[in-house]
Amino acid sequence: MDVGFIGLGHMGTPIALNLLKAGHRVIVYNRTRSKAAALAAQGAQIAEQITDTCRGEVLITMLSDDAAVEDIMFRLGCLSALKPNGIHVSMSTISVALSERLTEAHRDAGQAYVAAPVFGRPDAAAAAKLFIVAGGADTVLTRCRPLFDAIGQKTFVISPQPSDATLVKLTGNFLVASVLESLGEAFALVRKSGIDPHRYLDIMTNSLFSAPVYKTYGSIIADEKYSTDGFKMSLALKDMRLALAAADAKTVPMPTASLIRDHLLEGVAQGEGDNDWSNLARLCARNAGL
Amino acid sequence: MDVGFIGLGHMGTPIALNLLKAGHRVIVYNRTRSKAAALAAQGAQIAEQITDTCRGEVLITMLSDDAAVEDIMFRLGCLSALKPNGIHVSMSTISVALSERLTEAHRDAGQAYVAAPVFGRPDAAAAAKLFIVAGGADTVLTRCRPLFDAIGQKTFVISPQPSDATLVKLTGNFLVASVLESLGEAFALVRKSGIDPHRYLDIMTNSLFSAPVYKTYGSIIADEKYSTDGFKMSLALKDMRLALAAADAKTVPMPTASLIRDHLLEGVAQGEGDNDWSNLARLCARNAGL
Amino acid sequence: MDVGFIGLGHMGTPIALNLLKAGHRVIVYNRTRSKAAALAAQGAQIAEQITDTCRGEVLITMLSDDAAVEDIMFRLGCLSALKPNGIHVSMSTISVALSERLTEAHRDAGQAYVAAPVFGRPDAAAAAKLFIVAGGADTVLTRCRPLFDAIGQKTFVISPQPSDATLVKLTGNFLVASVLESLGEAFALVRKSGIDPHRYLDIMTNSLFSAPVYKTYGSIIADEKYSTDGFKMSLALKDMRLALAAADAKTVPMPTASLIRDHLLEGVAQGEGDNDWSNLARLCARNAGL
Amino acid sequence: MDVGFIGLGHMGTPIALNLLKAGHRVIVYNRTRSKAAALAAQGAQIAEQITDTCRGEVLITMLSDDAAVEDIMFRLGCLSALKPNGIHVSMSTISVALSERLTEAHRDAGQAYVAAPVFGRPDAAAAAKLFIVAGGADTVLTRCRPLFDAIGQKTFVISPQPSDATLVKLTGNFLVASVLESLGEAFALVRKSGIDPHRYLDIMTNSLFSAPVYKTYGSIIADEKYSTDGFKMSLALKDMRLALAAADAKTVPMPTASLIRDHLLEGVAQGEGDNDWSNLARLCARNAGL
Repeated sequence: MDVGFIGLGHMGTPIALNLLKAGHRVIVYNRTRSKAAALAAQGAQIAEQITDTCRGEVLITMLSDDAAVEDIMFRLGCLSALKPNGIHVSMSTISVALSERLTEAHRDAGQAYVAAPVFGRPDAAAAAKLFIVAGGADTVLTRCRPLFDAIGQKTFVISPQPSDATLVKLTGNFLVASVLESLGEAFALVRKSGIDPHRYLDIMTNSLFSAPVYKTYGSIIADEKYSTDGFKMSLALKDMRLALAAADAKTVPMPTASLIRDHLLEGVAQGEGDNDWSNLARLCARNAGL
Repeated sequence: MDVGFIGLGHMGTPIALNLLKAGHRVIVYNRTRSKAAALAAQGAQIAEQITDTCRGEVLITMLSDDAAVEDIMFRLGCLSALKPNGIHVSMSTISVALSERLTEAHRDAGQAYVAAPVFGRPDAAAAAKLFIVAGGADTVLTRCRPLFDAIGQKTFVISPQPSDATLVKLTGNFLVASVLESLGEAFALVRKSGIDPHRYLDIMTNSLFSAPVYKTYGSIIADEKYSTDGFKMSLALKDMRLALAAADAKTVPMPTASLIRDHLLEGVAQGEGDNDWSNLARLCARNAGL
Repeated sequence: MDVGFIGLGHMGTPIALNLLKAGHRVIVYNRTRSKAAALAAQGAQIAEQITDTCRGEVLITMLSDDAAVEDIMFRLGCLSALKPNGIHVSMSTISVALSERLTEAHRDAGQAYVAAPVFGRPDAAAAAKLFIVAGGADTVLTRCRPLFDAIGQKTFVISPQPSDATLVKLTGNFLVASVLESLGEAFALVRKSGIDPHRYLDIMTNSLFSAPVYKTYGSIIADEKYSTDGFKMSLALKDMRLALAAADAKTVPMPTASLIRDHLLEGVAQGEGDNDWSNLARLCARNAGL
Repeated sequence: MDVGFIGLGHMGTPIALNLLKAGHRVIVYNRTRSKAAALAAQGAQIAEQITDTCRGEVLITMLSDDAAVEDIMFRLGCLSALKPNGIHVSMSTISVALSERLTEAHRDAGQAYVAAPVFGRPDAAAAAKLFIVAGGADTVLTRCRPLFDAIGQKTFVISPQPSDATLVKLTGNFLVASVLESLGEAFALVRKSGIDPHRYLDIMTNSLFSAPVYKTYGSIIADEKYSTDGFKMSLALKDMRLALAAADAKTVPMPTASLIRDHLLEGVAQGEGDNDWSNLARLCARNAGL
């Protein structure tokens, strides 16, 4: 397929690469041109203008926040440049409100909008092992299927409503963050009690908590090797903000999300915004005097 | 082996039954005699006096709280009735402080103390699929091994310090409770957003959250079938209290544990103390106006 | 002075009335015309068009939220209708961001913007006993002084930056809400302990807590007469949201504000949005099973 | 009157001094003898044995926690040394449970127990300006009146049940702590917003928050002079623990108390246990990156 791709960050780059590997023709754009150049070596075409990415059948965006997506689609003209019947696949984690607005805007323009956020860290993206949560019309999702197959291990269709996929992603990130926070608190106590954290982790992940999220982050916490380049605290903070905004719009109290938001804010205020969100656990340790 | 067993509740009964099935000679005691009678039909001997349970090599206690354990061991004479070199295997979830006190008391009496709390619900106990976390001297744990093999799918040895096993159990229950709370908040939002909760659960448990704890409790929450006879809110409240007490003793703030404690207290205050702790999620739903 | 006045709610009506009593010429506008009619009987002129309120020296707005203020100023033309050198005195509790935007917009239009939110309930407004927190240029505030004197018992000038007054008001409402929440929790315990709540209140307000906020709200809570028409829970929720947004913008964690926000959300979700925010204390009581 | 006095700390010393000044005969005891010596210079008699303090009509204890009170009354013999009809006036902030136990123990011994905790910092104690909250039988309180008059500006009788006074004190300290926490959060935002904290305090304490607690602590926070020797964080932590224990016993969730408890724990874990509890506000500032 002819695919435009905007947003070559930690996640976007390996995703675009896997599209190329699967034989798709990909035209890429990134604000920082050097990142696009790296992909060109792998066969990607580089867009001269950002709207050049909109000439194919599908435009994929993988950007950091609402502002970036709004800027590109509305101000820089990608919405109007996308051809009739073209599909915008938004993989960014954005607000439910913007997802709804994009659904409407693309519909009005005779185009289709798909929200397809992903679960997985950069290494999962590189291995084409992402989990994709897709929301959009069935016929449109069928057209996107070859792309999803190239980048993920599994695609879950949530509903024809794109913003449902956005909400699933936001609550999923909330659930991951709550694992980080609760593990952080538990490990702080375990450590101060003189118990071997690796032995502790071993027990937990081989009994009730045998899920990837506990294994991956549990290891980081037990090893105290927090400085991976996975997912920035500042972006996690943004996602908690969006989850809380979605919850507020539906009048749903989420006290655990509030607690985590406040801890992320504490981390960012103390200069850790660019560190991996597993640093939530380090914050727990520090607050315990460790 | 000759085993005494005190405490025939939801968990104790199937555990004692599995000991019998494995060929151990079990003498049981329960405050409510009818429960002991049911086990007698399966080959258990019924203790006339509570201290009759202390005549064998091992005494197992599976009681609901510190008060019950203290009462039986110190006031009703089980500590002094246990023979030299006898082993007290405490499977109850008790305080770290009492676990330390029992370690010392049994040592002073020339006996051995093992803390061996379990993870798993009554159905796992019936199926001999419990996870056992054991703390105690190696030689003593070796003697207990045939018993553990009869009742659990796996035994994790944490350290020679019995109270370490107690702490692992308490933090483990905290981690489960935090899963209940965070799932409860997420499902409330998912429901009020009009998303199918079963579809949502399916996505979560087939991607990052593929652990038993998410599958078991996620189903209860998605089905809204909270009234199982698993683990009472009032007992979960007790465990959060004990986790927080252990954390306080080590000067470790655990804000998520505090939040959950307060929600359990809210549930108990509203008359749900005897319901399964998955009702935490129902509380989240109710607080969201569902 | 010639004053335009938009927003004749619980607070706006008595304020406008006091301006009339002090001899100012007031032209009023309200979406619901009948409210304006009531003031006409007291000497107010009724605006035909909303922009008729902008013909005098000062336009006062007392509206419920950002959306209302934005609508009136930007979409319905009041910004452009205000004459050069005219002053817009915004008494509404709005976001810091909108306060900054209005400051700039009025400056660009050769006008002046003053943020002058007030502390006090409708009865204080009626008695001209409000506390006014004013932010704006000194010369501009001097021109507004006769108006402030007509409606309040005291005017505090915070700084030449209008949004500073907005922030003071938002944090002030946060402090009041935290009094409501903590009193609610304390009274729930006092009640369940069998202590006379009035005796309790008497002790507290005659020792360390001898401030109006404790006396006013303490009485409501001790009497359990929550259904006053003071300040709606839904508006309090809005203000906590704005305080948290301001704090987020400055990277300041405010966990108590988060907790209160979640409790207000709980109240609104349970159908109490239109009740006075003192119902926070009733929520505490209910969560304690009272 | 003949009065025994045990506990010559920051609060006990000025209180005992005021009793002497008012003409009472005071026999003092303190674990650290040098503190007693200082009072001897002012006319106090020094007890040889701790039980010598029990020879008069009234024994006053002003100790730091339950353990100290239990030790002195039960283990060191003060309960049995107090003469029939003697009164034990406990000014310490202790648990509701211990207050109830002492009530019973003294009743069984034919003595009387009065709980008379105080509000006020060391300077208020020195100036005989304490607020006393007294619980006990009317006739007994009448006998104590001359003592109360010598040390406080006002005595509030809560009920004949001594533990009611204990609970009032605990919830009072909770209310003060919640003022510290909420002021801490508000000032962190005010500071990061570039607003003058003294100007801010001035507005708040001259409008809705004109109570001593806001003035005293607000000044400390605005001045950032946290290192006063008022009330240790570690003792405040103890009091939140006791308030939460009392609330737990009555099944009352107090989420704000939990939040504050966790923050105090954080402060103590970070080495601030001996600092004044106003450091809660410094913690808020630090968590905001100030």
